[in-house]
Amino acid sequence: MAEDPVSLPGEFALIARHFRRLAGPGALDLSDDAALLDPPAGRQLVLAADAMVAGVHFLPDDPPETIGRKLLRVNLSDLAAMGAAPLGYLMTTALPRDLPADWLGRFVDGLAADQAEFGLSVLGGDTVSTPGPVALSLTILGTVTPGAALRRGGARPGDSLWVSGSIGDGALGLLVLQGKLPADAAGHLAERYRLPRPRLALGQALAGLARAAMDVSDGLVQDLGHLCRAAGCGAVLRSAEVPLSPAAAALVAADPALLALCLTGGDDYELLFAAPPEADAQVLQRAAIAGAPVTRIGRFEAGPPEVHVPDTTGMPLRLPQGGWSHF
Amino acid sequence: MAEDPVSLPGEFALIARHFRRLAGPGALDLSDDAALLDPPAGRQLVLAADAMVAGVHFLPDDPPETIGRKLLRVNLSDLAAMGAAPLGYLMTTALPRDLPADWLGRFVDGLAADQAEFGLSVLGGDTVSTPGPVALSLTILGTVTPGAALRRGGARPGDSLWVSGSIGDGALGLLVLQGKLPADAAGHLAERYRLPRPRLALGQALAGLARAAMDVSDGLVQDLGHLCRAAGCGAVLRSAEVPLSPAAAALVAADPALLALCLTGGDDYELLFAAPPEADAQVLQRAAIAGAPVTRIGRFEAGPPEVHVPDTTGMPLRLPQGGWSHF
Repeated sequence: MAEDPVSLPGEFALIARHFRRLAGPGALDLSDDAALLDPPAGRQLVLAADAMVAGVHFLPDDPPETIGRKLLRVNLSDLAAMGAAPLGYLMTTALPRDLPADWLGRFVDGLAADQAEFGLSVLGGDTVSTPGPVALSLTILGTVTPGAALRRGGARPGDSLWVSGSIGDGALGLLVLQGKLPADAAGHLAERYRLPRPRLALGQALAGLARAAMDVSDGLVQDLGHLCRAAGCGAVLRSAEVPLSPAAAALVAADPALLALCLTGGDDYELLFAAPPEADAQVLQRAAIAGAPVTRIGRFEAGPPEVHVPDTTGMPLRLPQGGWSHF
Repeated sequence: MAEDPVSLPGEFALIARHFRRLAGPGALDLSDDAALLDPPAGRQLVLAADAMVAGVHFLPDDPPETIGRKLLRVNLSDLAAMGAAPLGYLMTTALPRDLPADWLGRFVDGLAADQAEFGLSVLGGDTVSTPGPVALSLTILGTVTPGAALRRGGARPGDSLWVSGSIGDGALGLLVLQGKLPADAAGHLAERYRLPRPRLALGQALAGLARAAMDVSDGLVQDLGHLCRAAGCGAVLRSAEVPLSPAAAALVAADPALLALCLTGGDDYELLFAAPPEADAQVLQRAAIAGAPVTRIGRFEAGPPEVHVPDTTGMPLRLPQGGWSHF
């Protein structure tokens, strides 16, 4: 952070006061040109960055508390997919001048809560103004035992295909928040759209067991395509076995066409992974210890890198083209 | 980068193809969830992040080749201010859909040139769309000998105040590009606005010699105020000794009021530092070896953290309030 709070214009002081709350060891109180970090001995660094723009990746009227947390969790999900543990993050915010007065405080409140929950803190960043919508960027640092990172390539024909948690809640939650679908009583779907649950414990538990892994961000079918292309083989995804939350299952029961949306909609942030079939029991055991439900939803097959999605009758399920595209 | 170039929508393929050119060791070809990096043994990590928005930090019609380079160099300047050597970077780009067809390729061309010049490569990032202006964010990683980082605090009364290069070119260059000042024949001022010159060699050469350092980004006077507050002392900045380029000196000669703009305008990305007065000769020697001109422009004084800027007659120079504010 380039800003100093003493004797400076009001907005600088405001921003510095808010973000300084989040500063951890090495951040130098966000008052130097850069942060200093002693890399943990005997660990490999894992680095990812994601950006979010109001109106594209979150709704402009989402509660400010959830917006920073969503960005942080999306990045934590990248660490989870690599089997890494969180270390710290840097964040830049481009903010319009007409934000509500309490917006920044609530935004930072949400981040503070997640820092406590996930055990990391901010190392640095920058805050600038923009004539456009809120634009956020976050770079996350994690660590992993050298050589133990989960990678996207590595699935083999015959491997079981697994997914954690439930699929489709985020995509349905967006439609709920847009008023296009009825809300569930508990608000589960909207909550899942706003606050992904990075599967950090599961990712770390899968080290040495999963042959390939990634997080589902752009849609289950499209992301499975990534695993297939990275492995040079195909996969069968049994749509009837894809885990749905009770709230999602109720909507799909009322309108079966919504199943395709669940499979392609994105914003799931669950782990999709391959493991040898003889390890099925071990996968279930490690996932239970990690507190993450997992479901076997198909398998990898020899052949071109194609994803086959049969319905309950074995016929190809009708799907919209691809998954969520940022463009 | 979450995007995969194979069998995906056209824009994904385009973006991936462009950015993959920049990927270095550890980036995993930008096709996994995160990058893997073995931290250099026996080094401390230095981390900084900066954001830039079109129309705020660069001109929307700046050549695309210079835009990414400016962001990279602004971050490299943060490393320089800490005495660090570059290691790698992550970048996120929020791009409007109506960018000219050749924009992205030219943007990446510029980054590729700077990667070669400064010896680093991209580790990861994200590209998203925005309904607003181009918004860029870059996180840089560098390394330093543990404990040897230059810090903002540490100046002592009596220390010499030094600055590298020349001051004011960037602020004048912006006015030139806006048509508010006449351009110099060589285009030096516009070039300095668009392409800062991070003082990496100088920063590393000052380790163990400078007591405090920072880079001048928000205006010389305001940034000197940061050094004073961090040290708990004051400073005298002799305005007549502030180094001006020939192009800047010509404009100031024609309109002496422009001197105040040079001292407060920002976008200099020179190093401002404190060193004991008995080290003056050594500072000059090390700077010469590093290929960076340096000028002694004042000294630190006991007293409250105030910056005094006398003119040639010893009277306080009339200055606009503070320096460049991002808000």
